[in-house]
Amino acid sequence: MIAERSSKCVLLPGSADEVSAILRHCYSRNLAVVPQSGNTGLVGGSVPVHDEIVLSLKKLNKNFTFDPHAGVVQCDAGWILEELYNRLAPEGYIMPWDLGSRGSCLIGGNISTAVGGVRRLRFGSLHNHVLGLQVVLPDERGTVVNFGSNVRKDNTNLHMHHLFIGGEGQLGVVTSVTVCAVPKPSSVQVAMLGVKTYPECREVLRLAKQYLGEVLSAFELMDAEAMRCLLENENLRNVLSSDPPFNLLVEAMGSNEGHDREKMENFLNAALSKGLAIDGVLAANAKEAAYMWKLRKTLPLAPLHDGYVYKHDISLPMEYFYTLSGLVRKRLEGLAARVLTFGHMADGDSHFNVSAKQYSPEITAKLYPFVCEWTVQHGGSISAEHGVGQERKPYAKLGKGYEVQMARILKKQFDPRCILSPYKMIDAF
Amino acid sequence: MIAERSSKCVLLPGSADEVSAILRHCYSRNLAVVPQSGNTGLVGGSVPVHDEIVLSLKKLNKNFTFDPHAGVVQCDAGWILEELYNRLAPEGYIMPWDLGSRGSCLIGGNISTAVGGVRRLRFGSLHNHVLGLQVVLPDERGTVVNFGSNVRKDNTNLHMHHLFIGGEGQLGVVTSVTVCAVPKPSSVQVAMLGVKTYPECREVLRLAKQYLGEVLSAFELMDAEAMRCLLENENLRNVLSSDPPFNLLVEAMGSNEGHDREKMENFLNAALSKGLAIDGVLAANAKEAAYMWKLRKTLPLAPLHDGYVYKHDISLPMEYFYTLSGLVRKRLEGLAARVLTFGHMADGDSHFNVSAKQYSPEITAKLYPFVCEWTVQHGGSISAEHGVGQERKPYAKLGKGYEVQMARILKKQFDPRCILSPYKMIDAF
Repeated sequence: MIAERSSKCVLLPGSADEVSAILRHCYSRNLAVVPQSGNTGLVGGSVPVHDEIVLSLKKLNKNFTFDPHAGVVQCDAGWILEELYNRLAPEGYIMPWDLGSRGSCLIGGNISTAVGGVRRLRFGSLHNHVLGLQVVLPDERGTVVNFGSNVRKDNTNLHMHHLFIGGEGQLGVVTSVTVCAVPKPSSVQVAMLGVKTYPECREVLRLAKQYLGEVLSAFELMDAEAMRCLLENENLRNVLSSDPPFNLLVEAMGSNEGHDREKMENFLNAALSKGLAIDGVLAANAKEAAYMWKLRKTLPLAPLHDGYVYKHDISLPMEYFYTLSGLVRKRLEGLAARVLTFGHMADGDSHFNVSAKQYSPEITAKLYPFVCEWTVQHGGSISAEHGVGQERKPYAKLGKGYEVQMARILKKQFDPRCILSPYKMIDAF
Repeated sequence: MIAERSSKCVLLPGSADEVSAILRHCYSRNLAVVPQSGNTGLVGGSVPVHDEIVLSLKKLNKNFTFDPHAGVVQCDAGWILEELYNRLAPEGYIMPWDLGSRGSCLIGGNISTAVGGVRRLRFGSLHNHVLGLQVVLPDERGTVVNFGSNVRKDNTNLHMHHLFIGGEGQLGVVTSVTVCAVPKPSSVQVAMLGVKTYPECREVLRLAKQYLGEVLSAFELMDAEAMRCLLENENLRNVLSSDPPFNLLVEAMGSNEGHDREKMENFLNAALSKGLAIDGVLAANAKEAAYMWKLRKTLPLAPLHDGYVYKHDISLPMEYFYTLSGLVRKRLEGLAARVLTFGHMADGDSHFNVSAKQYSPEITAKLYPFVCEWTVQHGGSISAEHGVGQERKPYAKLGKGYEVQMARILKKQFDPRCILSPYKMIDAF
């Protein structure tokens, strides 16, 4: 549950110098500050807990340069992701990540939350793309530091800018970003496969890596309960008539439509002929592909109609990806709850949800701390991509050792008075 | 020039616990330690400066696990890169980076130097692939810390393990690595193109990104002087008969030979028909491809026959990639010196070399600090991929600000007595 907010003040700086002046002042007066980007996060990281000053980066969106030969973008942290897509399109490039909130999230927030999203499988993590960051530190001088570089390779210092990727605004305020864009793929192929068992889903993933190789761009799992939920709550019908236990949405994105389609057909044929898939449909056109994605993209919303939803964003080693869903279903037997699973399977990232008519202390007690403990015991992470913020804080340190202590030590070096987003991921006090 | 060494002691721990015991002891006695992997670095990072104890990781090579579904490798830091290739081959995977010293370099050293190498364009930087690191800290307890995770996504803490990628062993000793392997490409296509001017080389790169897209795996530039050096010193003849000012080696690596070859042919035809390339050859088979690579791979050695070589590994924004070579040639006019340029152009990484009959104070004075200052003034890096170690230290801080100070602060947090590889990249004192 995200705490009540009682902030009285939102500041909207338009430059790094203004951010610096604000942080200098807040340092001198010991005032707590919460940096806020598009405020689209799911764990309350950009939301004040008490009366913190909100430092909105929305107006920090003037500077933008792009080198179409190198493919390098340099821009202020307040640019909306979608606007960056629009700027790059005429040059034949796209941003290397994408997510549902693309129309309102800001690039600075994307960096600070180490956003995952739907293109990670194809283009890699943010750590691959971000070359350098300008950061303002919440210290005596509001020091403006350029971490990293504007060129693709720089081995002249510690690669410190990575600390701010996923730093949740707790070490400094990101004010400018240098990032590699990627050439815009000209073809997208989408297929849906029906599979009987989870071990077979793993084999289909291996096959996808083999047949689709460099063009594999999404491998999403949706179980039968997820499909039932879509039908009951959103009136969305599965494209697979066999009503399989597992539905795999597989996407390929490349630079040559003919090649990509042939690869996808070969993959689909292999999965069917080997008996790993019992059913399979290749989208014939963009409309059919969009419908398959609609099924997947509606899943975070569909269970809301049930009443109350316990959402998760856990990461697990591949062999355990679906195990937890079964265990939770057993634990909730006899209670009126729906357990549905969907997620970025290739990344091991499961958004399994539990929905019920209303919030239930009984269900809650069955879920927590079990889900978190089991995940950590099995080598997983209780926050794969959404971050810690406020919501995930109670369990974020499970199974972690000295690493947590080291994060506190680092926080004090960057933010000596702990004024930046206190009460969040890193325990400063 | 790398300093004289007078180490009397080399230790060869076989486990993280042994590393911990050594660092605990060295901490208590204030003994300086240099972690050493394959000792294949080019800047003296793993070489002691005075009488430091050498901590060799060669024997730390027992543990290895691989999940073929997730594609995740977990192994000790002392594994030789080539051995990892051999282990992964039967599973249809390769390591996501490669370099000339693959037969003797260790994965721990690869991490600590943030190795670039010849597959970076295709698979991305190490920051993309390394999920977690076990590190032993040189503190009172020789603390063993697991930074990062064993799963692909984990947003529950600062992404601290990135500090050790390119940390040059100055913050801790990497003892175990969790890294993503990549599916082994089944096809490699290589072409050589002749181009008249550098701006046209940039246009050819854009074309390569457009036509080769996801399979583009190398884009290497070699100028006419580099080719002359190969012919004179190594008796290696260019495959292009036109003797062009610029030779571009372009490689595509993918999962479907027919598709990749067609893409490469389309690219070559476009470059020729647009008049950007004046000459072009597509390797007809593996032997011809190997010869093209032989030209490129011999270039670091070829100028050595001239007598003395000033080597560089600088990174520059794309527009300036070749400018410096021309400026240096002018500065050295009248002096008996050869200026040849080759490098990973797509990464902006130029290994331009200056060779002469012998070491010359006159040439040296014309080169330094000019080369380093000019590079930094134009937004580049004086060490793109080789690191700082001892050799690059004099100029590594050029143009850097508070970032350098912050590196010192971090060093003291991880290595409170500054016993780990002192006198290197980070000024501890």
